[in-house]
Parts: sequence; structure tokens; C-alpha cells
Amino acid sequence: MSCDTINPHVVKLQYAVRGPIVLRALELEKEISQGSKKRFNKIIRCNIGDCHASGQRPISFIREVLCAATKTQIMDTNLVQDDAKLRARRFLDSCGGSVGVYSQSTGVEVVREDVAQYIEQRDQLSANPQNIFLSNGASEAVKSILQLISTGEDGSRRSGVMVPIPQYPLYSATNAEYNAYQIDYYLDESNGWDLSIEQLEEALNKCKDKCIPRALVVINPGNPTGQLLSKDTITNVLKFAYKHNLVVLADEVYQHNIYAPDTGFISFKRALYDIGGRISTELQLASFMSCSKGYMGECGLRGGYCELVNFPEDVQQQLYKSLSARLCSSLLGQLTMDVVVNPPKPHEPSYNSFMEEKSSVLEELKQKAELTTKSLNSLQGFSCNPITGAMYAFPRIDLPKKAIEIAKSKGMQPDFMYCLELLEEYGVCVVPGSGFGQVPGTWHFRITILPSIEEMKLVMDYLKEFHTSFLAKYS
Amino acid sequence: MSCDTINPHVVKLQYAVRGPIVLRALELEKEISQGSKKRFNKIIRCNIGDCHASGQRPISFIREVLCAATKTQIMDTNLVQDDAKLRARRFLDSCGGSVGVYSQSTGVEVVREDVAQYIEQRDQLSANPQNIFLSNGASEAVKSILQLISTGEDGSRRSGVMVPIPQYPLYSATNAEYNAYQIDYYLDESNGWDLSIEQLEEALNKCKDKCIPRALVVINPGNPTGQLLSKDTITNVLKFAYKHNLVVLADEVYQHNIYAPDTGFISFKRALYDIGGRISTELQLASFMSCSKGYMGECGLRGGYCELVNFPEDVQQQLYKSLSARLCSSLLGQLTMDVVVNPPKPHEPSYNSFMEEKSSVLEELKQKAELTTKSLNSLQGFSCNPITGAMYAFPRIDLPKKAIEIAKSKGMQPDFMYCLELLEEYGVCVVPGSGFGQVPGTWHFRITILPSIEEMKLVMDYLKEFHTSFLAKYS
Repeated sequence: MSCDTINPHVVKLQYAVRGPIVLRALELEKEISQGSKKRFNKIIRCNIGDCHASGQRPISFIREVLCAATKTQIMDTNLVQDDAKLRARRFLDSCGGSVGVYSQSTGVEVVREDVAQYIEQRDQLSANPQNIFLSNGASEAVKSILQLISTGEDGSRRSGVMVPIPQYPLYSATNAEYNAYQIDYYLDESNGWDLSIEQLEEALNKCKDKCIPRALVVINPGNPTGQLLSKDTITNVLKFAYKHNLVVLADEVYQHNIYAPDTGFISFKRALYDIGGRISTELQLASFMSCSKGYMGECGLRGGYCELVNFPEDVQQQLYKSLSARLCSSLLGQLTMDVVVNPPKPHEPSYNSFMEEKSSVLEELKQKAELTTKSLNSLQGFSCNPITGAMYAFPRIDLPKKAIEIAKSKGMQPDFMYCLELLEEYGVCVVPGSGFGQVPGTWHFRITILPSIEEMKLVMDYLKEFHTSFLAKYS
Repeated sequence: MSCDTINPHVVKLQYAVRGPIVLRALELEKEISQGSKKRFNKIIRCNIGDCHASGQRPISFIREVLCAATKTQIMDTNLVQDDAKLRARRFLDSCGGSVGVYSQSTGVEVVREDVAQYIEQRDQLSANPQNIFLSNGASEAVKSILQLISTGEDGSRRSGVMVPIPQYPLYSATNAEYNAYQIDYYLDESNGWDLSIEQLEEALNKCKDKCIPRALVVINPGNPTGQLLSKDTITNVLKFAYKHNLVVLADEVYQHNIYAPDTGFISFKRALYDIGGRISTELQLASFMSCSKGYMGECGLRGGYCELVNFPEDVQQQLYKSLSARLCSSLLGQLTMDVVVNPPKPHEPSYNSFMEEKSSVLEELKQKAELTTKSLNSLQGFSCNPITGAMYAFPRIDLPKKAIEIAKSKGMQPDFMYCLELLEEYGVCVVPGSGFGQVPGTWHFRITILPSIEEMKLVMDYLKEFHTSFLAKYS
């Protein structure tokens, strides 16, 4: 086996969030730990939505439940609250008494019931546990749906998947993996990264002889853009998808991360039902949620779910069958998801501390969202839409011509060179816009707002210093 | 999206271990819980290697470590032993302080180091942590390697993967999923399910114009066959693979489940190095291990690893890149794997209790292996090779002609009908041989040996009664 004979789709796949800049950051960390002297004494990781790695503390209640379910003797002590014990016990009773069992391929039944109830409360619409499956993070669920949609055909019969640009690279990576034709559509940066129907129509028109368009991906709140979509936009997008017979993949993993004043999260499902008529009973929608984001940030536990709306029964059965060969997702990931959708209630002993921890995380993120937007926009040649959701900013930077030329002469994307120099000189790790996609000739990077407020201030100071010297260097 | 337009490879995929018989068992359980009267008052699940679901208790030390790492306050108490705290602390220190972080795509470094050390001790050969990646159970790792090998080409250029018959259906399911051409080779039932090189050559010859053979799967100890391969067999298989330039996938997840007297487990890697010469530095081998089997049976935690031997550096990089889009496997699954490869040492406080629990599980499995072999062979028309490894028996049954005709008139495989009737009448759930593959015209089923000794005795009594009445009914 050599690179010439392996699966060419694997070779094609790229995933910038873990690309060369991040590998260089790892090397720098090793150098520092071996005593190498730098201007900075640690790498500040603003490259990935890895909340706990950035210092965010786990929500105590989640860990209490996990702990009680893992080692049931804990339930005989006062180390965990009664409501945590209750959830652990209920989970164990429903799955055979141990977190070491295989669950059904779609996940433990009570968890799927709790997810359904959570969705019902969120949307004020009924939800059916049979239409929900649990997964190792949202990523696994996204991959399963895209695999189902991608027929593997070639030429003009390739399955087309519409993906926003900029996008979270899971989508481009998975399309490469399953040989789907990716139909890029640009988000409108000048209009708060909104989706424009004209842009969607244009993108679809352009690919007519290249594929059979089958699906449309939307990320709301946006990654890497950090924007919350309006209900009007969602409604228009759904109508567009219905008109063109596209399955909608709604990546809604940041549904708890909303910083826009006076606006709450509106799900694609809620918007779909509000349109009413045939679209609401016919449009096929898959919505994804995760334990890794929100206020919990439990990335390493790999919990996630997907709700299928209007999927034909037989298609659903094919999907569930395909999940069965991997047996089930992590039981502790499933249990984490259960706590997220069924948090302590006002009468329960953990309620107050849970709510305090939750609001404290979300309040701090909100402050950092404002701080980041403001600081970025104060830099010469930077423009950044306000962060109204998710955990990222995606500022646009005007780079000097000379920098662009030098980068190209080195075979680098100019924003890649910018991010690499920022890392080398200040230890700040961000991901170049080229990893997410951008309008040709524009340059961006994605920066997370996860480090502590103090660190975010430091990052902004570093960035200012760096940017000034970068401009001086390449002018 | 309809079944006509989805990925046809997903439609083709089958996974019998979770097929219609198991779904019927679930229905029966519901009927019983709703008060329906049957000859039996519970379903005895002998269909899946789900240890804890069959009543096996978790190994305390594993759970202590998980618990301490999940809720670090536990480390301030006496609820867990010091050696458990030490492992939890070391893991957390190496991954950023929380089991909620993303690890590197290939897994936490100290775990990969511990895996390497475990392999070194097992094989008395060096192992490199860089050649090891952690996965959500062994299944995910197997799928990654098969995906890498399957080029997705059609016609005579399809990637061919040699798979034993009978086989664990993960392999046939994954080959269907990635459109690989499966080259069946029969195990020699009359010779303790041994691999015969003549059979391998014959299978390869037959498919010459149908595919490009690229890989060979071997399961040792065998699933569903329950047999341990001899070192001679392994050596010959490796030579065969080298001759035909095949990557070897060694499914060694049952390496702790050995019941053969006077024989220990010999890994494919050990056997490869013992051949020496060019084959030992050139043959590409991937070996899989899991937390779900052995004495631990932690299926739900989804821990596993794969060691790559002689993989070219660039191919390995492509594989690792493809893992990065799913970010990482479950951190608690990784930690479980860490405990399995780094169990308590003789001087540590948990050593005695750990060893007692471990031997007790393995000793009981050994007794059940003997009991099952003996009981099955005492039934008229049954023949069963001795269970020398893994957790299964795969007895052959002579079915009456009339039963075969009636099954066929119902559109069923005769062994499927046999297993269905066994389930309906006695509540014993086993999987028909047709789900694993078998020589045409022969009939088998797979039965696990996981229920308690009392239950296994009951299962054997039920089976005797059922079989006698089945023979009477169809004679």
C-alpha cells in the first residue's frame, strides 16, 4: 500500500482546524517546555472550540451524574447530589445496569425520549424519539447523513452538497471523503454573514452539469462566522431548499451560544412548521446538536444527537442499519447529552448551582464576544461583523500587496503566512481563512473567544502589536 | 431523498448481529414486561458479545480511575485507591486537565505510550507510540483502515479484501459500505476452523478478474468460531499475504480470552518478526485491540486501538489526517484503554483485588467454554469445535430436509428459522450462521458464552428440549 494506491478521496480530504499551523503550535509548546526562550511563555490556543482546554471548568452537575453512573458506590455517599443520583440511576435502569453495555445503535431509549422532550419545549412542537439518534459528537451524525446522501457516482451524477463559504471544514472534508460534489455558496459578509437567496440560486445554477444537487448545509449560529440567522433568512432558505428538492442539514450545535440582544435561537424545525402547508410535512431536515459546545464544552466525551424531520421511514431504517455496524456511540457521551437536555429543575437540589455555573460561562462568553469584536475593529485594515452567536470571530484583514506577493512566492496563502507569523512571534494560534473558504482575494482568520477574559485581552494586545509590525514589515 | 436515490452501498450493507432476530427479541421483552405469558420469563441474550449486559460485573479498578478523572474531587476521598488516583492524574496532566478536552486525533500521548509498552511486553519487540492510534472501539479503527484501502473504483479495479467465512459481519458491512470486493475464504471447520493456504490461494485465484486484491482480514481468536490459531498457521498466512502483496488486518480483540491448555496468545506482529528477513520489515500489518472484550467487557465506553506495522510514513499521515475530521475518540474510552494496557502492578494497592476480579471472569469463561462445547456436542446432529478462545461457539447443525424445505418456502434461511423458533419458544437469542457466512448447504448459529454458569446450563437444557421437539416437528 502506498499513497498511489490508497483511497484517493482520503488523500483529497483536508481539515484545516488541525492543519500545519496547529502542528507547528505543538512543536513550539515542546520547544518551550524544553527551555527554549520566546517572547511568550505559552501558546494561546484560539484555533479550536475546545472549551476546557482553554480553561473553562466543567459543569459540576454533569460530572456528578457521570461519576455516579460509572461507579455506583458513589450513590451511597454525599459526594453527589440526589438529583444527580436520580439521573444516573434512571439511565442505568434503562440500559442494563452498566455504562459498559452496548446500547441500541440509535442510543439509549430514555435519552432519546429526553431529547425529544427538550426539542418539544424548545420549539413548542411535538418530537418523536424514533426520529432521534445519538452519536459520538455531532460530527459522527453529520458524516452519517452525508454518507447516506452521497451515492458515490461520478461525473454529472455526483451528489451535490451545498456548503456555505466560509464553512466549518468538517463539511468539505466529508464531501471529499464520500466523493460528493461541493457546491460552494458565499455568505454575505457585508450583511452580517447573512444567506442571500440570489447567491444560493446562482451557486446552484453554476453546477447544473456537474452534479445532482441533493443537500444544503446551514450552520446556525455560524462557524466560523459567529452570526445568528434571522427567522426570515431561515424561512427563505427552507423555501429555496424545498423548491429544489434538497435535504437540509442544520448544524445547530451552538444553539445555547447566543449573544445577540433581544433575539433568541430559532430552530430550522420551528421555522419550517411556521411556514405550514406541504413544505412543513415534506421538506427533509436533519438537525444536529452536541455536548461539546454551549455552556458545557464537553468535547472529549463525544456526545451528540441528530433529529430527522420528514425522513421517509425506509430511508431512516437504512440509516439506522448503517449505524449498527459501529454498534453504538459512547454511553457516557449519551449520558452527558441526557443531562444537557434534562438539566436540574427549579425544585431540585442542584438547580441553583447549575444555573450559576451555566450563566457564568455564557455571560463571560458574551463579554468576550463584545471585547473581541471591538478590539478587532479597532485595528487598521480589520473589519469584523459583531459576534452574535457561537464562539468565533472571522475578521477580514486587508493585507499589504508586498505580503501577498511574498506569501505567494513561498507557495503559501497570504492569510496562512499571517497566521504563521502571529504564532511564531506571539504564540497566538488561529486558523487562516483559507481553511474555511472565503471570497477570492479576501483574507481572514478564525479566532475563538474561549480563553479567559485576561487572556483574550492579552491576545488582542499581541495582535495589535503584531499587526502593526506586520504592516511595517511588508509596506 | 428516497431509498432509490440514497447511497446504494449503505442499502447493501448488512449487520446480522443486530438483525431481525434481535429486533424480535426486543419485541418479546416488551411483551413480557407488559404481562404476556410465555414459557420463559426473560430473554437470554446469547446473540452479542455484550459482557455487562449478560451480568458480568465491571472491573472495579477501571471504574475507579474513570471516576477520579471525571470528578477530580473524588481524589480527595478514600473512595478510590491511590494507584487509581495516580493513573487519573497522569492522564489529566497529559491532556489538559479535563476529560472534556479534545485530544490529538490519534489519541492522548501517554495512552499511546502505554499501549506501546504493553505491546513491547507482550511481544518482546519494540513498539512506537507514533504507530498507534486510539479509536471508538476497535470497530472504528477497522473501518478507517478498510476505508483507506478501498479506492472506490469499479469493475476489475475494485479493491479486494479477503475475509474469512464465517466472519464477524463488521467486515462484510464495511466492505459493502466502501464498495470493496469481498473475497471470501472458508475456514476449515473439520480442522478446528484453521486457515488453509490452499483455500486462500483458491479464493484469490477465483477473483482474479473481479478486483485488485489489497488486504487480508484474520480474526484471532476467532469470531464467531471461538478458535485460537497456531503460530504455524499465522506464519503461513503472513507468508501468503507477503507473496500477494496484501495488507494484513489482524483482529486481535480477544487476545485475553484464551482457554486452550498449554497455549498462549501469539500476535501476528510477533510471528512476523520471527520469520525475519524482508517480510518482517515490509509486510504491512494493522492489529486491532478493544476494551470491549477480554476480562473487562467495557463495550459502552468505546475504547480501542490500532497498531500499524511497516506502514509507509506518508500513508500513515493520510490515515491520521482522515481521523482528524472526527476530532478524537472518546477520552474516557481512551482512559479505559490506558488502564487495560497498564493494569495495577504487584506493588500497588489495587493489584490483588484487580487480579482476583480478572481471573474470576476469565476462569468462569473457561468453564463456560468447556460446558458449552460439551453440551452442544451431546445433541443429536450437532458438531462443535472446542472453544479455545474468544466468547463464542459456532456449532454446525444437521437440519431435517423438511425443515429446510419449509424454511425455503417461507423465504427464510433454514438456520434463521431454527433460531427464530428457538427464540419464540424458549426466549434464547442466538444469531443464525447465515449472518456470518458458511459453506453452502451447512447450517450453524453463533452463541455467546457470556451469561452466568447457571444461565448457560439453563440455555443448554432449553436447547436440548427445543432441538428434540424441532427434530420431531420436522421429521
